[in-house]
Amino acid sequence: MSAVPLQIDRLAVVGVGLIGGSVALAARQRGLAREVIGVGRNPQRLRAAVEAGVVNSFCRVEELPRVQLAVICTPVDRVAEDAAAVLKQTEADTLVTDAGSVKGAILDSLLRESRQRFIGAHPLAGSHLTGFEHASANLFNDRVCVLTPTPESPPAAVKRIREFWEQLGMRVREMTPAHHDAALARTSHFPHLAAALVAAAVPAAELPLAAGGFRDTTRVAQGDPELWSAIFELNAGPLRDEISRATAHLDNLARALESGDRAAITAFLEQARNVRSQYSDSSPHVAPHE
Amino acid sequence: MSAVPLQIDRLAVVGVGLIGGSVALAARQRGLAREVIGVGRNPQRLRAAVEAGVVNSFCRVEELPRVQLAVICTPVDRVAEDAAAVLKQTEADTLVTDAGSVKGAILDSLLRESRQRFIGAHPLAGSHLTGFEHASANLFNDRVCVLTPTPESPPAAVKRIREFWEQLGMRVREMTPAHHDAALARTSHFPHLAAALVAAAVPAAELPLAAGGFRDTTRVAQGDPELWSAIFELNAGPLRDEISRATAHLDNLARALESGDRAAITAFLEQARNVRSQYSDSSPHVAPHE
Repeated sequence: MSAVPLQIDRLAVVGVGLIGGSVALAARQRGLAREVIGVGRNPQRLRAAVEAGVVNSFCRVEELPRVQLAVICTPVDRVAEDAAAVLKQTEADTLVTDAGSVKGAILDSLLRESRQRFIGAHPLAGSHLTGFEHASANLFNDRVCVLTPTPESPPAAVKRIREFWEQLGMRVREMTPAHHDAALARTSHFPHLAAALVAAAVPAAELPLAAGGFRDTTRVAQGDPELWSAIFELNAGPLRDEISRATAHLDNLARALESGDRAAITAFLEQARNVRSQYSDSSPHVAPHE
Repeated sequence: MSAVPLQIDRLAVVGVGLIGGSVALAARQRGLAREVIGVGRNPQRLRAAVEAGVVNSFCRVEELPRVQLAVICTPVDRVAEDAAAVLKQTEADTLVTDAGSVKGAILDSLLRESRQRFIGAHPLAGSHLTGFEHASANLFNDRVCVLTPTPESPPAAVKRIREFWEQLGMRVREMTPAHHDAALARTSHFPHLAAALVAAAVPAAELPLAAGGFRDTTRVAQGDPELWSAIFELNAGPLRDEISRATAHLDNLARALESGDRAAITAFLEQARNVRSQYSDSSPHVAPHE
């Protein structure tokens, strides 16, 4: 983190929910932005966000004044549209970033020239709570943010957006959009799908026999079906690759069970335990849709 | 629970670990047994269990004196062998039960006449800790215990074993061994396998991108690979059925993703959430190998 905060005169936050509200609070409390404008479609909610001290003012995207930076924090299936609207509305020196959990589909939808001002990001932070009422200036502290620059991204723009997320407290990593999406399919989207698969297999009458293993393995299956089907649709390719890999693996395990090859089963479980033991939970924030 | 505790003069607990130690402590503290004998192969550990006040005395199975009831609490792949040894060593009026998490394979291995004295049980209680040092007289309080009588089980013996587990504080349900094993494949064994599958798919370099969803979904993959491969091997048939069901489901989901059928994905996630919302976590004890 650089010692002197960026001086953003006006920052636009599009979508003032948990993430957008936290961006606004963090940017103001850390002195990154003089003024934060909440942008959205619901004036009642935005007025409440102003009254709660989360943003300074609000407007519709068509009314957006000159801003130096805009952060798109709407649901993942609206990011591309909202980014395009903001890019259209703003000047050539306005940079745009986002918080969507899928990157390739968003970037592919933007015009080539738009990608010179849009640097995609995925802050790995969240909560099971929603709404700016639960926003926190500390939500991003010490969490990972993935930046996904493309060949069209000007290095100066990438640097500026990196500094912005770093100054919100995040540890920034750069990856290609394709690598981000493949990795997130493995670390988040397929785990969610597997959790749902496990939950859906249990008839209600057998739930009294379910205990700690079921509880933990299926916890994320409580997430919002609309939000997750949007993520799955936008990341369909990488997710299908993981499904193929999983079914092949399951076929092998079924054969090992059929032939009584306990050594193969044990080796598989040891490999899984080895990976899990390397995971360290550095995060106090549980993100249901990270 | 009947008002007057069973009067067991001598109770044998084979395998004095977390579960066996908790059976011993609960039986003594609740006045069910005058004397509890720890049975096993490791005199040092058993002597320590006596010194810790968990059991009154200890012996090898070949030295077992007359007991009214024996509870086999050894690892699931040793239950059948230990039950057979105890049945051989004891009189016709000694009843035997167990705590194994698979029932069909254990019962199938016993002689038909043995099944008149052996009433299989699966107390759904546990902890991530092991060893009698972590045993607790309250481990079974208000947890479910599945009894799996067979056509050979005398009703009086089933009644006596039911009362025993009830008097340890459990809510007893009766099921066929086949139904128990199929249900546990869905509620415990396949969830464990799915958790391992999710964990094993993530390269170490991508673990910094894993957050709450990965953490919860894979938590049980930290379990002991030997213990779990034994469970999987003993319950191979029902587990393979669940694997087949899961791969068919995954194929359908992959097709829905390919054709952009978001409604089908959302419906699947809604079904999963509906099941999960009916699960109530009534248990303070997290059982890693229930």
